[in-house]
Amino acid sequence: MMKNNETIYLKNRPKIIGSYSIVGPKEGKGNFGEYFDYVMKDDCFNEETYEKAERKMIETAIVGAIDKSRINPKDINMLIAGDLLNQIISSSYAARVFDFPYLGVYGACSTMAESMAVGAVMVDGQYFKNVVCCTASHFSTAERQYRFPLELGNQRPPAAQWTVTGAGSCVLSLSGEGPEISMVTFGKVIDYDIKDVNNMGAAMAPAAMDTMLNHFKNTKTSPDDYDLIVTGDLGKLGSEILIDLMEDKGIKLGINYGDCGQMYFTRSQNMMCGGSGCGCSATVFNSFIMKKLNEKKYKKVLFMPTGALLSTTATQQGDSIPGVCHAIVIESVKS
Amino acid sequence: MMKNNETIYLKNRPKIIGSYSIVGPKEGKGNFGEYFDYVMKDDCFNEETYEKAERKMIETAIVGAIDKSRINPKDINMLIAGDLLNQIISSSYAARVFDFPYLGVYGACSTMAESMAVGAVMVDGQYFKNVVCCTASHFSTAERQYRFPLELGNQRPPAAQWTVTGAGSCVLSLSGEGPEISMVTFGKVIDYDIKDVNNMGAAMAPAAMDTMLNHFKNTKTSPDDYDLIVTGDLGKLGSEILIDLMEDKGIKLGINYGDCGQMYFTRSQNMMCGGSGCGCSATVFNSFIMKKLNEKKYKKVLFMPTGALLSTTATQQGDSIPGVCHAIVIESVKS
Repeated sequence: MMKNNETIYLKNRPKIIGSYSIVGPKEGKGNFGEYFDYVMKDDCFNEETYEKAERKMIETAIVGAIDKSRINPKDINMLIAGDLLNQIISSSYAARVFDFPYLGVYGACSTMAESMAVGAVMVDGQYFKNVVCCTASHFSTAERQYRFPLELGNQRPPAAQWTVTGAGSCVLSLSGEGPEISMVTFGKVIDYDIKDVNNMGAAMAPAAMDTMLNHFKNTKTSPDDYDLIVTGDLGKLGSEILIDLMEDKGIKLGINYGDCGQMYFTRSQNMMCGGSGCGCSATVFNSFIMKKLNEKKYKKVLFMPTGALLSTTATQQGDSIPGVCHAIVIESVKS
Repeated sequence: MMKNNETIYLKNRPKIIGSYSIVGPKEGKGNFGEYFDYVMKDDCFNEETYEKAERKMIETAIVGAIDKSRINPKDINMLIAGDLLNQIISSSYAARVFDFPYLGVYGACSTMAESMAVGAVMVDGQYFKNVVCCTASHFSTAERQYRFPLELGNQRPPAAQWTVTGAGSCVLSLSGEGPEISMVTFGKVIDYDIKDVNNMGAAMAPAAMDTMLNHFKNTKTSPDDYDLIVTGDLGKLGSEILIDLMEDKGIKLGINYGDCGQMYFTRSQNMMCGGSGCGCSATVFNSFIMKKLNEKKYKKVLFMPTGALLSTTATQQGDSIPGVCHAIVIESVKS
């Protein structure tokens, strides 16, 4: 084992045998609209509160992913999930309705990568046969927890991103058919002293750069080795910063690089710098990217969700915004 | 592999090669006072805010555990940590100062078990050689986040528990000397519809029972097979409830059963039902229990931290309090 090597290789290649995505109406009208499994008619999802709607979205995504994996829920060994709400209540309360063990994780908007990475290790090491991974975010719960009361109708600065209302889930298995997870590069917490809570992209870009550089170095690969390199929710500005940072390091990110947040909404939706939130990369991966992998349009994808690890308390106490990013390599099955 | 078996066996038996505990002055005067590595003179730990003090406690515990493990920090492959604060900022901000990957986890007061369980899998599966696990809680940060402003000097009902100000950390390794982790039983989220936020013990006891029953069944062991069976922070009332619940299931918990929260403070400290918080079981395990294991006074310990997965938002919206509990078996090295 290399010293302090952040990349692990999964020799049993856990298979993603099922995935599901559910989003809000605005997200349904975005660029990935046609790929989502379910588009809600309204953000409340027939619940009393937005928080309960987010919880129901997670339950729906988990049930949907298990259903599409065509395995018996009794054969699920574990749920690994997390979200943006304080004490990750959306995930923990959703876990109540399922009869399998639960691990709560928190990596802000990098949570889909964290849950998949831990799940892949559990499966690859043959500790468990089937693990469900899930995460979600909801504009209305995140906005009122992190920023302002929704009733305030606050203006949004140009660097702002829109928290995606959506949940994504997938089932990882030792056996079965589906794209395979071959490598994981775990990220460090990186802080470039960005303090603007309306500019998350700038705060997360350095973490994405650090993980990407380590991944390429450890795996001796380059951007050309992947059909798609996709970060989580750096947004228009953050992804531009990442491209610049990588170029400074001598690595050119070409047309096979994209950012889920930057691509999420259409121009006419005028979402400033794009989408953000755990649900951003989670719903893009568990819909569009999984479809392209299953169709073998993509043979090798480098999936890199990014997270801004702040809280309102930290911000109020003058702290900057640390970022983290984990990288997962998913490959379509050779035929 | 058994269907839906929550227990995993670690054939490489990750070794706990170093552990460290740091607590506040009140905790230092408690029953485990003599066993802690460091007792702070005041809860602020020379920081501007209690939140920054909690963060510094985590940094101190991690550095202390690595130092006692006598390995080079460069050889640490990963940090797995979590805490009670919104967006687990104490852990995530502490992670900034270390040059290894970070996984944030959240299991409320069961977090020490969750971080150790995930870390043990990472090490046992030989994905990483050395993993640091850590968690912490701070009375003053938890009280003002979950309950009332400290200035209010609110009265405490008899069922209340005192959030332990303390951080515990340990280093898990594939090689080296130390007590070994042989099994892990992951817990499900259990909700018995308890809504009294001042009676966490009652909310968590059913989860402890569920995990304990599954553990005994899966491993074909009974209470007599362990020198110590210790739950996290059920407190006086919660541990009584667990004893009753287990007796109803035909399993008698004897004198080898204890609860960290119930045992934490002295009678004269008058802490109602005892200690709670991530730091409760974390500091007891990483001081007293580790010492007894290293001295081989304990040959086999069943460590079962418990977590109440609520948030103020969930409580305000009328939700009950779900509980979770993970069980870890630690054995002293046979000589």
